[in-house]
Amino acid sequence: MNSVDNDTPVTAAILVIGDEILSGRTKDKNIGYIAEYLTAIGVDLREVRIVPDVEDEIVAALNALRHRYSYVFTTGGIGPTHDDITADAVAKAFGVPIDFDPRAVALLQQRFQGPELNAARMRMTRIPQGADLVTNKVSLAPGFWIGNVIVMAGVPTIMQAMLDEVGPKLKTGKQMLSESVRADAREGDIGTELGELARQHPEASFGSYPFFDDRTGPNTNIVIRSRDPEKLAAATKAVQDMLREVKARLKAAG
Amino acid sequence: MNSVDNDTPVTAAILVIGDEILSGRTKDKNIGYIAEYLTAIGVDLREVRIVPDVEDEIVAALNALRHRYSYVFTTGGIGPTHDDITADAVAKAFGVPIDFDPRAVALLQQRFQGPELNAARMRMTRIPQGADLVTNKVSLAPGFWIGNVIVMAGVPTIMQAMLDEVGPKLKTGKQMLSESVRADAREGDIGTELGELARQHPEASFGSYPFFDDRTGPNTNIVIRSRDPEKLAAATKAVQDMLREVKARLKAAG
Repeated sequence: MNSVDNDTPVTAAILVIGDEILSGRTKDKNIGYIAEYLTAIGVDLREVRIVPDVEDEIVAALNALRHRYSYVFTTGGIGPTHDDITADAVAKAFGVPIDFDPRAVALLQQRFQGPELNAARMRMTRIPQGADLVTNKVSLAPGFWIGNVIVMAGVPTIMQAMLDEVGPKLKTGKQMLSESVRADAREGDIGTELGELARQHPEASFGSYPFFDDRTGPNTNIVIRSRDPEKLAAATKAVQDMLREVKARLKAAG
Repeated sequence: MNSVDNDTPVTAAILVIGDEILSGRTKDKNIGYIAEYLTAIGVDLREVRIVPDVEDEIVAALNALRHRYSYVFTTGGIGPTHDDITADAVAKAFGVPIDFDPRAVALLQQRFQGPELNAARMRMTRIPQGADLVTNKVSLAPGFWIGNVIVMAGVPTIMQAMLDEVGPKLKTGKQMLSESVRADAREGDIGTELGELARQHPEASFGSYPFFDDRTGPNTNIVIRSRDPEKLAAATKAVQDMLREVKARLKAAG
């Protein structure tokens, strides 16, 4: 990975393409996976969109996102059927021609010969001009990388193989560090104080995540995040001190 | 539900609000749930966006979506902490004032008395002017409905309770019907023929979903969708005929 020297954050968006996600028939498993992956390597995921298999929608979303973030990762719509129109939409968004790519054809020929490499499967070898292939060992049918847009499959195992392929080539920022503190208090009992800490520590971010402990009842996880280990430690200590005070006060109040 | 008389589809978007989804810390469980719910009642989910806890981002996404679709459902950001800014962002998007709402205060007073109804919890009673409350029995803290925007909690059990509350009040279109056919063929073997059917039956949509059967290997589910039962039946029969032909041809080819 090419860690960016200065502190400019490296940002990303995900564009999920597919009617099946919007109808609820298929439950997306890629957003959470890519989000965790990017966070781990120091890329800030800033936005996600899910759009249907409609060319104008894909082109519009892609153009909105690619000019705004360092990278756009798309999933879905690069299979062998008529509703797989992502490659054409990406070519249109970039204003470049698209055609059968000899490198992609060679990959598919490793698995499909003669009449098996039919028109449907050849669809998967259509790659916009100027793109690099993103290979995967699972299906052999490649994704591709053009400009700052990385086009991947929708099937999670194939998408994950493609992400492993591109991950080491991404430029990355300083990694976000985090600490998690179990509050042993209800979110509503600490919200005001946590907001106060957030104002006092602008260099850290404070997330508050309520959960229900079957044994002890309503509880809260506080997640403190910063790219600077010392600032993270100071903010985490401040949270722990705050929790002690609030709990002492609640106890005194009975 | 108020089924719309004419054939104008009723459309929707989901706006998920929350840093925790974008960092991958929390895996969204609401999109798939709402998608299935809307499909079942005849509302077409057309787009989803996930944005961070940043007011300008929420306002911009909300204004882009609410002018374009019949409904926008938001999830997240209506809890008691400093990063819960959805209600303020919605008020800003609509250009209306926001203040403590006596109806919301009365709801929270059912659970929290005296010092327990502190500033953090009072945050959850801030409701934009002109909004209707969307109650829930799980947390008591309400969501709200303003214009065509329905603001719900991010915690799945609470969101689901809120959706049950608003569902019967939504206008709905003619319900989308679907049939599912197991192809017993690989997606790449039927893609061309399926695309041909899609052109011949513009009144139906044909989705193709590859899966792996542990016993028999690569397989495909074909989902045919239409709002017209007769057209659905005709398109489904056409798929079954096509599958028979393709399999006979593959068998003859050896």
